[in-house]
Amino acid sequence: MSLLVVGSIALDSVITPFGETADALGGAAVFFSFAGAVLHPVQVVGVVGSDFPDEHLAALRARGVDLAGVERAAGDSFRWKARYSYDLSSRETLDTRLGVFADFRPTIPPQFRDARYVFLGNIDPELQLSVLDQVHEPKLVACDTMNYWIQSKRDVLLELLRHIDILMVNDSEARELSGDWNIYRAAHWIIGRGPRMAVIKQGEHGALLVAADTTFKSPAYPLQEVFDPTGAGDAFAGGFMGQIARTEDVSFDGLRRAMVYGSAMGSFAVEAFGVQRLERTTRAEVTQRVRAFRELVHFDLDEAEA
Amino acid sequence: MSLLVVGSIALDSVITPFGETADALGGAAVFFSFAGAVLHPVQVVGVVGSDFPDEHLAALRARGVDLAGVERAAGDSFRWKARYSYDLSSRETLDTRLGVFADFRPTIPPQFRDARYVFLGNIDPELQLSVLDQVHEPKLVACDTMNYWIQSKRDVLLELLRHIDILMVNDSEARELSGDWNIYRAAHWIIGRGPRMAVIKQGEHGALLVAADTTFKSPAYPLQEVFDPTGAGDAFAGGFMGQIARTEDVSFDGLRRAMVYGSAMGSFAVEAFGVQRLERTTRAEVTQRVRAFRELVHFDLDEAEA
Repeated sequence: MSLLVVGSIALDSVITPFGETADALGGAAVFFSFAGAVLHPVQVVGVVGSDFPDEHLAALRARGVDLAGVERAAGDSFRWKARYSYDLSSRETLDTRLGVFADFRPTIPPQFRDARYVFLGNIDPELQLSVLDQVHEPKLVACDTMNYWIQSKRDVLLELLRHIDILMVNDSEARELSGDWNIYRAAHWIIGRGPRMAVIKQGEHGALLVAADTTFKSPAYPLQEVFDPTGAGDAFAGGFMGQIARTEDVSFDGLRRAMVYGSAMGSFAVEAFGVQRLERTTRAEVTQRVRAFRELVHFDLDEAEA
Repeated sequence: MSLLVVGSIALDSVITPFGETADALGGAAVFFSFAGAVLHPVQVVGVVGSDFPDEHLAALRARGVDLAGVERAAGDSFRWKARYSYDLSSRETLDTRLGVFADFRPTIPPQFRDARYVFLGNIDPELQLSVLDQVHEPKLVACDTMNYWIQSKRDVLLELLRHIDILMVNDSEARELSGDWNIYRAAHWIIGRGPRMAVIKQGEHGALLVAADTTFKSPAYPLQEVFDPTGAGDAFAGGFMGQIARTEDVSFDGLRRAMVYGSAMGSFAVEAFGVQRLERTTRAEVTQRVRAFRELVHFDLDEAEA
């Protein structure tokens, strides 16, 4: 049951207190793919420029990622440069050069159109809608967005919400979209506009899965060393969707587990620069970390309460 | 097995976006007592001024709180006034008048000196040490503090750490005390200085219990309406210690459950102004909320991982 992601493929230059990278492999579809591919094969639709290093694509292929939907266009690849604060709690974007990504019009190859699980990475909501026009009968569609689209294409975004199952955004995006600072009210605002569920990513505080009548919270993994938060949200999405595609379990209990797989992959993502940690994460490590999450949150009711 | 708290008893004036109170019953020992007393009888040591309304003390007694250690001194009661931001995420202290609390020297009544479970509310660490000199053989001592003491009485505080089992502070206090912004490293710094465990309160993001070799995370309860965050941390402490005193279970599994009881009582605290919600919380409501916490975080490992 195939898993499709549409999103950015980029060259990232990131400065943290622990070092910096230059033109390292990055982008939402890339973090998603490295994380998801540990659990289930991933199909990617995206674009790279004529300057995009072949070895980056080879690294993705080596993880079993299907790049048949990645177009190589004449021009420069998408480049993003940012600097994190001393405690990694905030970052400043220093430079964004869209390059060939500015004219990206996702074309889903025929062999990808039967995808059952679809993740629409953060791109123009008009393009996200066009992807949905091209896939036949997806069982579950999750979608990311960002403040830029919330501000500039609100109407299209609201239309998109009527066609997806899960909106997956961070807390500030949920607040901006809903106009409500209470994160639970914000999540309910979202699911009142189409999606069956909202996933709210809260960085070092974990993530929430909110449905009409129930809420699940996954904490972040307790890491004493974090090197680079870049891509954690997309790695979360990859783990979440990879687990769903692997198990085909879209029950709420299944989605709870998917949240934990997402959190596990997000935690691997931040342990090294860029995709370095995700690239070498093994299936056994994922199992071990999922078990550690259970240890982190599990408690038994005592006799008086059970 | 008796549960003792030493701390402030105050008259709070609080302004939130939803209204304001004037000279309402407050203070760490009060929030602790209302929360703890739902689970186990609480003994209080503190001081009030000659102006302190009798009905406030009667309200505590009505919940089974033993006020034999509450001294009435000539002078004004401790008063605190604060205003919260629109989203309740920060607050500004407008006025602090210590009154009789400035000269508070805790004297533990003879009948309280066998207390098995002791909570040292946020007061001068020298006074916290003097309390420990007066109790005989407590089984578990937990202790709060604040940035003021971390800055002004660091050496005494470090001495105190050698005599307690659990330091219970919020995330900014843990960061300031340890000098480390990573909250897990900060917690390990703390447990390297005496306490067996650290409890880090993270407000709307829940609380962490960190021991040398294991960590437990309790989320905050998902509330769509929060009226007044005042006292949430002390209510957490009351629920945590009340559950421990009730069960006498200080195993790590027992402390996990205590964290959830603490989180439950913290969530009740913020649902109304001051102690209004805690004052009428029933044992059945606590049970129901503890079950809801389990539903909030529980997930089963799937077959591939179990």
